[in-house]
Amino acid sequence: MVTITPTSSLAGDVLLFEVPAPRDEKWIAQLQERYPGLEIRWHTSELTMMPKPLPDEVYDGVTLLVGFMPHPAEKLPKVRYVQLMSAGADRWTTNDLYKNPNVTFCTANGTHAPQIAEWVIGTWLMANHQFLSYAEQQKKATWNRQPSLHIEDSPGLRMGILGYGAIGRHCARLGQALGMEVYAYTRREKATPEARKDDSYVVPGTGDPDGLIPVKWYHGSSKESINEFLAQDLDLLVISLPLTDATKYIISKEQFDILAKKKTFVSNIARGQHINSDDLIEALKEGKIRGAALDVADPEPLTDGHPLWSAPNVFITPHVSWQTPHLFQRIQAVVERNLEGLSGQKPTLINVMNKTHGY
Amino acid sequence: MVTITPTSSLAGDVLLFEVPAPRDEKWIAQLQERYPGLEIRWHTSELTMMPKPLPDEVYDGVTLLVGFMPHPAEKLPKVRYVQLMSAGADRWTTNDLYKNPNVTFCTANGTHAPQIAEWVIGTWLMANHQFLSYAEQQKKATWNRQPSLHIEDSPGLRMGILGYGAIGRHCARLGQALGMEVYAYTRREKATPEARKDDSYVVPGTGDPDGLIPVKWYHGSSKESINEFLAQDLDLLVISLPLTDATKYIISKEQFDILAKKKTFVSNIARGQHINSDDLIEALKEGKIRGAALDVADPEPLTDGHPLWSAPNVFITPHVSWQTPHLFQRIQAVVERNLEGLSGQKPTLINVMNKTHGY
Repeated sequence: MVTITPTSSLAGDVLLFEVPAPRDEKWIAQLQERYPGLEIRWHTSELTMMPKPLPDEVYDGVTLLVGFMPHPAEKLPKVRYVQLMSAGADRWTTNDLYKNPNVTFCTANGTHAPQIAEWVIGTWLMANHQFLSYAEQQKKATWNRQPSLHIEDSPGLRMGILGYGAIGRHCARLGQALGMEVYAYTRREKATPEARKDDSYVVPGTGDPDGLIPVKWYHGSSKESINEFLAQDLDLLVISLPLTDATKYIISKEQFDILAKKKTFVSNIARGQHINSDDLIEALKEGKIRGAALDVADPEPLTDGHPLWSAPNVFITPHVSWQTPHLFQRIQAVVERNLEGLSGQKPTLINVMNKTHGY
Repeated sequence: MVTITPTSSLAGDVLLFEVPAPRDEKWIAQLQERYPGLEIRWHTSELTMMPKPLPDEVYDGVTLLVGFMPHPAEKLPKVRYVQLMSAGADRWTTNDLYKNPNVTFCTANGTHAPQIAEWVIGTWLMANHQFLSYAEQQKKATWNRQPSLHIEDSPGLRMGILGYGAIGRHCARLGQALGMEVYAYTRREKATPEARKDDSYVVPGTGDPDGLIPVKWYHGSSKESINEFLAQDLDLLVISLPLTDATKYIISKEQFDILAKKKTFVSNIARGQHINSDDLIEALKEGKIRGAALDVADPEPLTDGHPLWSAPNVFITPHVSWQTPHLFQRIQAVVERNLEGLSGQKPTLINVMNKTHGY
């Protein structure tokens, strides 16, 4: 049990939770005990992409907002902190609160890392150990070793991670545990131990917050620098980049030809538009790569009957790798940490968005 | 490149490889350079369970044997070291070489750990992230999130490992990386840091040779002590025990009733006879456990159409988790290490069998 030091520094503040989670009375009571004078409101929202504004009295006086949906800026003139429940702010970018430099936006960065990295490593192991072939055999209810199946294990293999954020860092942790060698690629150079750290929220016991795992670091924003990284004899390539103009279709025919040297397995849990789907289908059909695991696609949703569904050695899930029953609990941990910052108990907030970079 | 110090201490010895692997000229040359005067013979054997004795001249004078099959003791009077390619010596126990206390038997312990632990963690992730359901959906070539599927991720969950040998230790390493809490169970008490170490061969970058990962240790050989371990709210139970009279059917109805409290997922990569199949089927059907992954079965081979094949939430493979293209390379590493011991460059051998325990 953490000892609670009451502080009045949020007295007079109004904290609104607009979240797709049931009101958590026990947690609210803890926050109220910790922050006397803080008013807490809770609105459980539906999981919808078409947000409806809340009644005026819910917005009235709000200074701190934990929000699932964007809200009308004119109703929230006193807000100084917006805590998002997503890793990006796509739905907020045209909102005046977002444009206001005095409003601090914080993301849910790090809350999705364990489950998405488990998706990456799970699909990698499933492919290497041929679980899908054995699942088909199990349906036939017969015992047969299928000696023609190629099995692979991970020690000594090389994992390249394109984009070393929270998700990439937990992939690195799991890859290292498997005995793999991890290479990291970042947009900006990470030349010093300090630069390699990531101060985002980390689920305890996961990730690589200090950036100690990669044995080699690459960086750049040009196609040439990415191509150089892809040429490093990678067995597994994890795409965990944000999607920007610079990274759109960053994996296309030219890159698959580079990856063909080692027949790299490609795992994409970022955005479908990082990969040119036609070129991916060709790479799979021609055996340029040993396989692919995709939680995202281009187009998305992938259309019914699209040829990517049935390309060889590909596994596709419908953008579900972020799912976990523990998501809101992790967001609560981010909120707790940021209330400490807002009340002056800690000198900083975490997961503060760089609005210029958009993440 | 390792500097090779020539030694003549194996001069006059005759080393016979009887192995299901092609003659490795480069490696033989390295060994010859390292051990002048050592005679090396190589016989590539078929993968058969019905061994045929080799010609007399192949056996003549052999002192060191790296063998896949048992061989006639009377043809090998000078042998003092037998290196097995398996983790157990089942096929040798009636052989006079095995009974001879002057002949040291070494196992291939540790060479199977990475792939088997990957099988354990891969099937755990596959179950928790519902990959088989999504693979079925992919066949229909349609994008659908299936919100009713229960997804789980691993941070904070608890893994119990029944038998903390080479395989269990790499499972622990992977579980720890996932953010899980690891409990270990061993037959003999491991009360000191020294007792927790395992001097077996370890594939570099894998395992837990110093026994540092478990947060709690349990031990015993009675059913009561195992039941106490199973009652520790385990989310995942890994069975990585040797099969002995004491561990036969150690997981039966009484134990499934204990595991029902937490609906433990059960993973068996040891021997089929550790689990009572009828009780397992009942536990799966009644939802006492959340699922099971089995690389072994009772009976084995599991008969065509056996009800275990189609029990709910079970994944079965036909005793293949030990497979890897790197197996012989790892056995070569064990042989190299033991030749250092036999020639006096190192004070001990590794993977020396305790013939009383049978492993």
